[in-house]
Amino acid sequence: MTDHPISRFPVPDLDDMPDDIRDLMTSVQEKIGFIPNVFLTLAHRPDEFRAFVAYHDALMERDSGLSKAEREMIVVATSNANSCQYCVVAHGAILRIRAKNPTIADQIAINYRKADITPRQMAMLDFAMKVSKDAGAVCEADFETLHQHGFSDDDIWDIAGVSAFFGLSNRMANVTAMRPNDEFYMMGRK
Amino acid sequence: MTDHPISRFPVPDLDDMPDDIRDLMTSVQEKIGFIPNVFLTLAHRPDEFRAFVAYHDALMERDSGLSKAEREMIVVATSNANSCQYCVVAHGAILRIRAKNPTIADQIAINYRKADITPRQMAMLDFAMKVSKDAGAVCEADFETLHQHGFSDDDIWDIAGVSAFFGLSNRMANVTAMRPNDEFYMMGRK
Amino acid sequence: MTDHPISRFPVPDLDDMPDDIRDLMTSVQEKIGFIPNVFLTLAHRPDEFRAFVAYHDALMERDSGLSKAEREMIVVATSNANSCQYCVVAHGAILRIRAKNPTIADQIAINYRKADITPRQMAMLDFAMKVSKDAGAVCEADFETLHQHGFSDDDIWDIAGVSAFFGLSNRMANVTAMRPNDEFYMMGRK
Amino acid sequence: MTDHPISRFPVPDLDDMPDDIRDLMTSVQEKIGFIPNVFLTLAHRPDEFRAFVAYHDALMERDSGLSKAEREMIVVATSNANSCQYCVVAHGAILRIRAKNPTIADQIAINYRKADITPRQMAMLDFAMKVSKDAGAVCEADFETLHQHGFSDDDIWDIAGVSAFFGLSNRMANVTAMRPNDEFYMMGRK
Amino acid sequence: MTDHPISRFPVPDLDDMPDDIRDLMTSVQEKIGFIPNVFLTLAHRPDEFRAFVAYHDALMERDSGLSKAEREMIVVATSNANSCQYCVVAHGAILRIRAKNPTIADQIAINYRKADITPRQMAMLDFAMKVSKDAGAVCEADFETLHQHGFSDDDIWDIAGVSAFFGLSNRMANVTAMRPNDEFYMMGRK
Amino acid sequence: MTDHPISRFPVPDLDDMPDDIRDLMTSVQEKIGFIPNVFLTLAHRPDEFRAFVAYHDALMERDSGLSKAEREMIVVATSNANSCQYCVVAHGAILRIRAKNPTIADQIAINYRKADITPRQMAMLDFAMKVSKDAGAVCEADFETLHQHGFSDDDIWDIAGVSAFFGLSNRMANVTAMRPNDEFYMMGRK
Repeated sequence: MTDHPISRFPVPDLDDMPDDIRDLMTSVQEKIGFIPNVFLTLAHRPDEFRAFVAYHDALMERDSGLSKAEREMIVVATSNANSCQYCVVAHGAILRIRAKNPTIADQIAINYRKADITPRQMAMLDFAMKVSKDAGAVCEADFETLHQHGFSDDDIWDIAGVSAFFGLSNRMANVTAMRPNDEFYMMGRK
Repeated sequence: MTDHPISRFPVPDLDDMPDDIRDLMTSVQEKIGFIPNVFLTLAHRPDEFRAFVAYHDALMERDSGLSKAEREMIVVATSNANSCQYCVVAHGAILRIRAKNPTIADQIAINYRKADITPRQMAMLDFAMKVSKDAGAVCEADFETLHQHGFSDDDIWDIAGVSAFFGLSNRMANVTAMRPNDEFYMMGRK
Repeated sequence: MTDHPISRFPVPDLDDMPDDIRDLMTSVQEKIGFIPNVFLTLAHRPDEFRAFVAYHDALMERDSGLSKAEREMIVVATSNANSCQYCVVAHGAILRIRAKNPTIADQIAINYRKADITPRQMAMLDFAMKVSKDAGAVCEADFETLHQHGFSDDDIWDIAGVSAFFGLSNRMANVTAMRPNDEFYMMGRK
Repeated sequence: MTDHPISRFPVPDLDDMPDDIRDLMTSVQEKIGFIPNVFLTLAHRPDEFRAFVAYHDALMERDSGLSKAEREMIVVATSNANSCQYCVVAHGAILRIRAKNPTIADQIAINYRKADITPRQMAMLDFAMKVSKDAGAVCEADFETLHQHGFSDDDIWDIAGVSAFFGLSNRMANVTAMRPNDEFYMMGRK
Repeated sequence: MTDHPISRFPVPDLDDMPDDIRDLMTSVQEKIGFIPNVFLTLAHRPDEFRAFVAYHDALMERDSGLSKAEREMIVVATSNANSCQYCVVAHGAILRIRAKNPTIADQIAINYRKADITPRQMAMLDFAMKVSKDAGAVCEADFETLHQHGFSDDDIWDIAGVSAFFGLSNRMANVTAMRPNDEFYMMGRK
Repeated sequence: MTDHPISRFPVPDLDDMPDDIRDLMTSVQEKIGFIPNVFLTLAHRPDEFRAFVAYHDALMERDSGLSKAEREMIVVATSNANSCQYCVVAHGAILRIRAKNPTIADQIAINYRKADITPRQMAMLDFAMKVSKDAGAVCEADFETLHQHGFSDDDIWDIAGVSAFFGLSNRMANVTAMRPNDEFYMMGRK
């Protein structure tokens, strides 16, 4: 499977990347043993690469009323709705690890309404899907529903932000035909 | 995870099942080590159980221009389009085993257009999805496209039949909240 | 109109059919005066034919909290939503006869919400349509609504089963270009 | 069935109608034996009534490259797509009579792609449905396709006009819960 | 921009128009300084022209519980949903003038749920959009919601009528590629 | 109109913003005379603000085979499809200015297929809309179509990137109820 291209666009050699981007690659590789293809694909455009990573980290690493596993739930549900192979496979792996649950990612990708999640998480994903599919119809009643489940206004911004940001990521992954690394498929399954 | 119900409807004890159905359960269990929850769920209605199994086997076991792996590809693609957790997880496992490919099932479930399949298989899945989503628009041009990929009329019936039968299965699994056995998630991944 | 083909696929001669299938054809013909084209079309595949008839009878002939006319209402509403000429025309005839009502089938096919039916039947058809169009979103609230209209859990299985089974039938009829017998159009109209 | 209301809105007595409208009612009744409920329903608003009838006649009575039966085909296909009971039932009757064909109306209502019509009529209905569902996407390529089937630009205006006018009619019939006269169901079936 | 055609169809010279239609053109031109292209386009078909104008005036000029500005709100919301350039631009101008509000038309066209309107007007537009997109699902609960906002049954007819009539207008404008006069873009913006 | 809130979320005072963000505000205000509400709204989250601006500039300011006006066309078409009031109004203004064309923005927002644009721009917008609505179906044939119109692979990345980034922006604007500044409505109209 190693001869399938990572991206429909040119992927720069590590040597040809700007230092800050190469350093990021190296550091991720040291940590998890391989470089996720999203990094290699987006490195074709260094400025967008940097903004993408900054946006990602701003949403996914911040202190939030949503746990990191919950944020990954939003990624996985949104990404399957957008038919994004890379994001479902890669973030499915991260979700399994963060939630310490080998089946949760597949459940949420296919149908979060039947997944082993709490009513609060169900409401979170309902809203994330509305943001993804019909954000123009979001209204005050949605905020009220989420408040009743204990989400603050800033938590709601987080749900929307993660869904919206990965909607961007899903679209770029589909247009670039970004390929998930084989490693992701098995991560966190045991 | 063992305390989640298998089905929203009553699941009969093995002792209370008709002999032919219990025998089938026992024989499957001996072969793969557990009883798939679809059998236990549908055993609530013995006559439908028998018709379901007969229909399944008529399509999935017959000699066909489609390999068994190809038929499972149709199941997996159709079932994710119908948000059916049970069928994507269980038949994803079967597809991995039949195709001897640990990543193909996830690829096809999420977006078969980006999967590692042949153009012929792509045409097969395009048609299966049309049958699933808009069968009323199927027309002679669809047959011609499939003929050009080497499918016979009877192969086309098979594609349609598998997509249509699993459309039924998907709907029943969603209404009964049929739960995939935990075993399926890992099968064929190595 | 007699020279239009019944099916896009080969239709076997009565003489070439397995005995059990030919006997069924003969017995139906004696009862209603003609052989419905669904039988002739599906006889191209004897094993699927038998499973189809068994599944049909298991759902449509069983004792149920739904009357036989009500089950035909589900068939007609589902089949028009799926643009299935054969099933709307043939089961429209059966519905008119079972309900002793010459206008009910056309009303339900076109827009069941405006048909001369009870609120309970309206709820039944609302659920049947949800199963047909978006079964992945079926949830406990749907069961509660139906319970309030007096449906038991097993009645709900019946509604889902009929909608799902005829979803299969609709897809096969559209792919095979199954033609309704001319006789059905007038049955039960007076 | 006679005690079902014709319309959700008030229906004026013949005596209370303006003379021109009452005269039209009387003249239709003399011709076909009953007053179609569309007239009685819309008489609640005399000015709209007159404009509606004038628009209808301008499209349906004019000399055109489309036969009157073909124009009724457009009405029937459009009206089922819009779930309009009144228009499918009433214009189905007119289509059967104009085409001297007892089965054509049901065929076209359910799925015109499987109806006993010519390729030219199929192209006509394809365009009528595009006008009904996605007129904003109509483009020069649609005109070229229709020209190839022998339609003139003015014929194309007619197709669009009939589809658009009955889209209006379908919406008003659904909002007023306009009920088809029982007489229509049987007209032209023999 | 003056060399873009007004319509894809022939536009008659003023001299060749029937007297009543030419008189209407002249009178509008005297009042607003130019002839709206909808008049010139539809003059290709005098009978339809007259019925169109009569229908328009019956709905838009009548005494109603809806103000004239509110009726234009319905036109603008419906027309953007139908991707109709002519009607959004021309009626956007009229709405700005009637409402004495330079921003309201753009707001409503793009997303009426975020526009500076009252809850009553929001309910009016919700219903107008339902009539436009899914009139077959209109039911008694819609009437009740509108009654609670103070709309009478006849007001509801008006909402439906305006939405339905401009649905017709939108479709004809898209098929004829009717071009908005340049003058409309700036009217009422200051 | 000045008392409508800019955002559903808290908007920080200029004095409370980090220096780099306040400097950006000040510099924009000096240039165009007011601070666009998107800046004020997103300043609630400084890290996301910075990533958003960086991403925006990486796409919109880079050297590209797409002119700046063409990139704004993509923004306007995408944003109306996503019902985003802020982005249609604000970027409509920018498009009018960049294209030196007072009517182009409204034309493209409502229906780009009827706008005064070149076939190359039409193909660009067709692809942008596919990325927005169904990116999972993007395939090699789309690249070929765009190549035939003279777009390079990197131009195609730009089209996708702009559509995807503003899809994110549209969702955040709808969830925050971001209000367009009144100034934008008139900019570039003369």
